[in-house]
Amino acid sequence: MTVVERDEDFAPIENLIRENVERQGFMKLVGAELGELSRGSCTIAVDRRSELLQQHGFFHGGVTAFLIDNATTVAAATLLTPGKRVLTAEDKLNFLSPAIGERLVCRARVIKPGRTLSIVAGDVFSVSGREEKQTAAALATIAVVDAAALAQSREDA
Amino acid sequence: MTVVERDEDFAPIENLIRENVERQGFMKLVGAELGELSRGSCTIAVDRRSELLQQHGFFHGGVTAFLIDNATTVAAATLLTPGKRVLTAEDKLNFLSPAIGERLVCRARVIKPGRTLSIVAGDVFSVSGREEKQTAAALATIAVVDAAALAQSREDA
Amino acid sequence: MTVVERDEDFAPIENLIRENVERQGFMKLVGAELGELSRGSCTIAVDRRSELLQQHGFFHGGVTAFLIDNATTVAAATLLTPGKRVLTAEDKLNFLSPAIGERLVCRARVIKPGRTLSIVAGDVFSVSGREEKQTAAALATIAVVDAAALAQSREDA
Amino acid sequence: MTVVERDEDFAPIENLIRENVERQGFMKLVGAELGELSRGSCTIAVDRRSELLQQHGFFHGGVTAFLIDNATTVAAATLLTPGKRVLTAEDKLNFLSPAIGERLVCRARVIKPGRTLSIVAGDVFSVSGREEKQTAAALATIAVVDAAALAQSREDA
Repeated sequence: MTVVERDEDFAPIENLIRENVERQGFMKLVGAELGELSRGSCTIAVDRRSELLQQHGFFHGGVTAFLIDNATTVAAATLLTPGKRVLTAEDKLNFLSPAIGERLVCRARVIKPGRTLSIVAGDVFSVSGREEKQTAAALATIAVVDAAALAQSREDA
Repeated sequence: MTVVERDEDFAPIENLIRENVERQGFMKLVGAELGELSRGSCTIAVDRRSELLQQHGFFHGGVTAFLIDNATTVAAATLLTPGKRVLTAEDKLNFLSPAIGERLVCRARVIKPGRTLSIVAGDVFSVSGREEKQTAAALATIAVVDAAALAQSREDA
Repeated sequence: MTVVERDEDFAPIENLIRENVERQGFMKLVGAELGELSRGSCTIAVDRRSELLQQHGFFHGGVTAFLIDNATTVAAATLLTPGKRVLTAEDKLNFLSPAIGERLVCRARVIKPGRTLSIVAGDVFSVSGREEKQTAAALATIAVVDAAALAQSREDA
Repeated sequence: MTVVERDEDFAPIENLIRENVERQGFMKLVGAELGELSRGSCTIAVDRRSELLQQHGFFHGGVTAFLIDNATTVAAATLLTPGKRVLTAEDKLNFLSPAIGERLVCRARVIKPGRTLSIVAGDVFSVSGREEKQTAAALATIAVVDAAALAQSREDA
């Protein structure tokens, strides 16, 4: 149940999200790219390189966990109203098969938007040539908070 | 309920684990260090640097997710019997407060070891000077598999 | 990715599952009914009555949690090979909206079958007249164990 | 990190919680009892009887799931300020061992209270004579909402 609405307003939201994600040092370190972005959904992908692997030559589970953390939060952000921000509250992920491909793609979609909590599903796929195989499935809870309250909590922190 | 037993046998297991973790490209990229290692528990930590942050200057949630993924799996590995290997089946993590400190420390401990599944708790702390504040809590399920079956599944994959 | 295969063998499995579920005292107490059963999927539903509610007149969250626990485990059982049994390892569920309808329906489907672990998704819907609204989403990990080992663990327990 | 504070104000909160829990039809059907209640923690227990079991004679996983759902939510409610209510957002539970005892006890404690989200840990124990064995571990996210908004969402629902 991806939510699609009021697309005329989406361009500034998309721009803001892309700027924010570009300012994430960890996104750059991992070398991940923010792909498709629309109301309620988001794709983040990363190409295989040796720095992203574990000892058996597969993508490290931590790369999968990072993709899910980021893609689910960004997907929730696509539905924000003005003056609101998102914070990842929690997520849970199941590993389904080893991430052996040349590229890892995480697709997240909001399954239940909310004024204070959005629930987001995330699926990760390993891509080898034209083949795609699901390697992880996740459910995340994203908190929607006032931008003002968030700034405050940062000063308190 | 950390399990501590048969310490005479632990040195070779510890050596094997440390060698495996050193061969993880992603561990090196993140700059994380495997600290304390004992029967049923493990500590992994990483110092703050700009490559590990998100847009507000906190440690990225993906760094926390990576620490939990790796520390819970390694904690389960400390209890392996010969011929067995570990595979992360799933984990769930709650973010408790923003990770603003100079260092992020993940402590994992097996709360229920098993022949086929071990359940591991992981807690992440942000360290600022002498102060430590919990920033995340997690529960993970780690599968214990035959080394032979694992090798097979890699060839199949 | 619901798995459907070898249907000629399914009748005895279905019979065994239905017999087992009928022997669950808690299933009877709740008044839930095992509906559709096929390779990799399962439906369990229950009608509204006052004994199943919380203080605001909605289905209690515990009823939802029970439906998910049972339906995900049964869905995994539909894919068992001879001599194997299922055990719920863990599950995680998100509540999406209040369960206010006349009937609560849980549909579970295996998203990744495995020799030792099956991953199952479960969705719960509240039914009011002809309308159906999703009230919960879940991911569960079901362990596949040897019947002999399970019997042993029961004696040990 | 159980939160204990302002105990002079706790009596009316405790009374309100006990009244609410008594109005839960499902609590009565299961036969569970709300035990200890203090700032940030809660105990709910139930005695073994055949209506609560699965086909092997253990407590049904759904009973464990119900105890965790209810005890974690009530634990969060003990920390509410006036005009606020709790809603279970999500939980995740790991089964550690079969629940074979005469009594099942769930102890929940808030590990991170919050203005909009409280994170609660729940542990379930099987009691046989004087012995207690942990059978499940859980982490739950409980939303703290305005009573007025909650009433509204009920009318909308």
